[in-house]
Amino acid sequence: MEFQNDTAIQFERNQKFLDKATASKPKLQYDTIVPNRLVKIVKDEAKLFGYEAVTDDKAMQDLTTYSFGRNEQLVFDLGTHYVGKFSVDLTSVGAPMDAPLYIQLIFAEQPVEIGDVNKPYTGLLSQSWLQEEYIHLDTLPAKLELDRRYACRYVAIKVIDTSPKWQVQFSNPKFIAESSVTMTQVKPVKTGDLELDKIDAVSLKTLHDCMQDVFEDGPKRDRRLWLGDLRLQALANYASFDNQQLVKRCLYLFGGMPTVDGKISANVFTKPHDIPDNTFLYDYSLFFTSILFDYYQQYQDQETLIDLYPVAKTSIDLALTLVDSQGLLHLDKGWPVFIDWAQDFDKTTSAQAVLIYALKQFIELAQIKTDPDISKYQAQLTLLVSASQEQLFDKATRLFVSGPERQVNIASQCWMVLAGVLPDAGNYQLMTKTIAELFPVKGVATPYMYHHIDEALFKSGHKEEAVKLLKDYWGAMVHYGADTFWEAFKPEQPDFSPYNSLAINSFCHAWSCTPTYLIRKYLLGND
Amino acid sequence: MEFQNDTAIQFERNQKFLDKATASKPKLQYDTIVPNRLVKIVKDEAKLFGYEAVTDDKAMQDLTTYSFGRNEQLVFDLGTHYVGKFSVDLTSVGAPMDAPLYIQLIFAEQPVEIGDVNKPYTGLLSQSWLQEEYIHLDTLPAKLELDRRYACRYVAIKVIDTSPKWQVQFSNPKFIAESSVTMTQVKPVKTGDLELDKIDAVSLKTLHDCMQDVFEDGPKRDRRLWLGDLRLQALANYASFDNQQLVKRCLYLFGGMPTVDGKISANVFTKPHDIPDNTFLYDYSLFFTSILFDYYQQYQDQETLIDLYPVAKTSIDLALTLVDSQGLLHLDKGWPVFIDWAQDFDKTTSAQAVLIYALKQFIELAQIKTDPDISKYQAQLTLLVSASQEQLFDKATRLFVSGPERQVNIASQCWMVLAGVLPDAGNYQLMTKTIAELFPVKGVATPYMYHHIDEALFKSGHKEEAVKLLKDYWGAMVHYGADTFWEAFKPEQPDFSPYNSLAINSFCHAWSCTPTYLIRKYLLGND
Repeated sequence: MEFQNDTAIQFERNQKFLDKATASKPKLQYDTIVPNRLVKIVKDEAKLFGYEAVTDDKAMQDLTTYSFGRNEQLVFDLGTHYVGKFSVDLTSVGAPMDAPLYIQLIFAEQPVEIGDVNKPYTGLLSQSWLQEEYIHLDTLPAKLELDRRYACRYVAIKVIDTSPKWQVQFSNPKFIAESSVTMTQVKPVKTGDLELDKIDAVSLKTLHDCMQDVFEDGPKRDRRLWLGDLRLQALANYASFDNQQLVKRCLYLFGGMPTVDGKISANVFTKPHDIPDNTFLYDYSLFFTSILFDYYQQYQDQETLIDLYPVAKTSIDLALTLVDSQGLLHLDKGWPVFIDWAQDFDKTTSAQAVLIYALKQFIELAQIKTDPDISKYQAQLTLLVSASQEQLFDKATRLFVSGPERQVNIASQCWMVLAGVLPDAGNYQLMTKTIAELFPVKGVATPYMYHHIDEALFKSGHKEEAVKLLKDYWGAMVHYGADTFWEAFKPEQPDFSPYNSLAINSFCHAWSCTPTYLIRKYLLGND
Repeated sequence: MEFQNDTAIQFERNQKFLDKATASKPKLQYDTIVPNRLVKIVKDEAKLFGYEAVTDDKAMQDLTTYSFGRNEQLVFDLGTHYVGKFSVDLTSVGAPMDAPLYIQLIFAEQPVEIGDVNKPYTGLLSQSWLQEEYIHLDTLPAKLELDRRYACRYVAIKVIDTSPKWQVQFSNPKFIAESSVTMTQVKPVKTGDLELDKIDAVSLKTLHDCMQDVFEDGPKRDRRLWLGDLRLQALANYASFDNQQLVKRCLYLFGGMPTVDGKISANVFTKPHDIPDNTFLYDYSLFFTSILFDYYQQYQDQETLIDLYPVAKTSIDLALTLVDSQGLLHLDKGWPVFIDWAQDFDKTTSAQAVLIYALKQFIELAQIKTDPDISKYQAQLTLLVSASQEQLFDKATRLFVSGPERQVNIASQCWMVLAGVLPDAGNYQLMTKTIAELFPVKGVATPYMYHHIDEALFKSGHKEEAVKLLKDYWGAMVHYGADTFWEAFKPEQPDFSPYNSLAINSFCHAWSCTPTYLIRKYLLGND
């Protein structure tokens, strides 16, 4: 995806909305985690990412008896993935300390991040995301309390140097985990299928670890609020932690900082203060309406609807400017659509479906608001739907096509199901055909797109196939040892990194947390 | 030299003395240094250490207009060497900051420390002394205030990564220099010889930068109080800054923590609290008496003499246990003598001379103290001197010999001169012979030994040769661009590192500060 670099974009700043966002800021909950074992990170080509964490010969309960010199290393295992801050006490043994202590710390979601730490960095994203620190301590004993927040399961401390006359000893390692919610708030599911129960549990942990000051996309990398991710996180949150304030806060952040034209940023920053990014994605902008709709469904919060309905309306109006008189969407290069990371398929029809999906939700909000303009949107919807049915649905193949070359791809079918462009029976048949012709899914690397495929299966009545995909996709990550679900996963190439570096992959990423929503909504009927 | 690793040594702890040491702690003076130019560190084989700092195309006054991205670097030049702390303001330009900033900072006394920073470390000392930091800043703008103290002239900031969407800008770089004295306290000399005036100025700056909470050996590396260095620093201090309290503090630190047998450590640590090192050097122990003597000469401080005379006496007694009935010293492997770093010459005769040197000073103190034991020491002195004259002075060559193989080396001659074993005429002839046969000096890498050679020249009446050596040795460092004098320098191999790594060399080292003492005492007669 091309990121805009235009810094001349003019944004509005609705201070009343931003104040409401601040007022809804969650009080973080802290939990002290004491590592439960020491591990060694061992090269193992049989493991997915080439490394395994095996129990160290050194026992955790004897920690204070071990001393470490130049090039020696210890690795704490927190037992599962956490987000928070680390501290440890250090002292020297031997002769008086005749040189500083110099250590490297590596915080790793997966063993590969420790294993590859000293390889030259080949990743496409900023190397600054790698969770490593180099620390000098001039005098010992000392308590090392790192200021920065990390997302990790493993904490490696490599001693770069002491001196030949003394070594370093460690004690009292602590990880203060943080989140705006607690795991104990949510009851584990009992679906009767242990694999699904486990997938639900990992989903919950993923969501939990991403629920911080805002809904973050990944607590290791990016650490910010994206509209597309927010929509899925909010849905999973309603089905589980049910934290109203955090969704409200995020809605007001987006609603408080559109461009002067009313375009909504694809993501916002909240540090050092609230800042909208200059990245705009067509589908993500539409999801503002979608998130407001879902939120209102959940909480019937009139005040928020009254505040943010005009923002949604303007963004819908802007999106509709790209629709021609026949009801067909024409994407603008300056306002790309996301749908999925993959760039090698035509996204026009998917984008048309997302527009219909959001417009339907908007019309429901317009009804609640008794907006006198509602008929205009209803007319637009009718036009969009019929254009989709008549011009994008291929009568011969019974599949949706996309773009001038009438490409058939899986995203178009799934989004058209989610948009409800066909009647229920048509949706069922469409997904039957999709399963027959386009499954198994290939070339999709994001749990984000897999979510939409899976929800389309559930929604169209293909429950068995939906459960199979849950297991084949999220279950495969569990099989590979995921404590939380990953930003990127391609079952046909499971060690894929979209960034040319496994170390920079995010192994706890919000948009992968939706199985808890899908399981609880479609299998347990907790709607 | 072999360092002892025996941690079972029992030390005394005279809290009254340590409290007096604390009470004499200097109030550090702070000076804000704003870098005066930006430089580039350029590879240049014609330069002594292979690199040169040349003025950057970027102008310091335009600093805030430059922005830096991945792998870009800027280097501040403070104009000369300083010891202290660094701060700089940072901000981002471009799109909102979508990744942390990751920078490396290098604090360098010499350009080579920046030039070689990413070479694999091959040095013999702990790599932890290299003055570099890796810093992540999650949000900008920020003020970066580093906690640690550095010794440097150059501060390099290398941007490891920003992101393609933004860059970093720097402003308000500041170096808060610290010392227990100020350069303005001392008048520059006017010898009539600009080269000597410059050597004196560089000596003063060296001493100034080493005068911190204690007299440090090197503010970049080791950063602690050594007895041998203290003796020379105190002498230079009397001739210049004349800070009584700092010498007093250091005397009480050594005097307050001997072993239970009365042996005085070669060095002490003062952080995290006062700790004697488990390293003992025969000559350094003797210098405790020497320092006390010089201090009393300077200030006639009765209280300190009363307190510390017994400590000196015990240490002299201990040293004398190694002298046989004929007045010859027999060194003990467990208590090595330093004299110089070089290990390839016999040090027995030098050690005998140091003993005589210190014993003479002790007897003067004993006279002041009217110690009834004085005659015992006088007898020992007579024995030591006559054994030296009769058994160590070779009548044929008119030079002192050392060890069973009757080795002739420069250290023996010079220390025998300083100890005054021969009458003045004998000393003159001895040094005439030494100059003829053993000059130019070879194989000596320490300004410490060069000091003793030079003082022996002055003391024996070879003023012209002494001035020549000042210029050939310390003047050569000035010629090579020294802002402060170095820990190690061998004129015949000027890029020598005793540690197999120029980056770990200390380029501001206390024991090289003595020209200011030699010039002011022997050339200007400020005794």
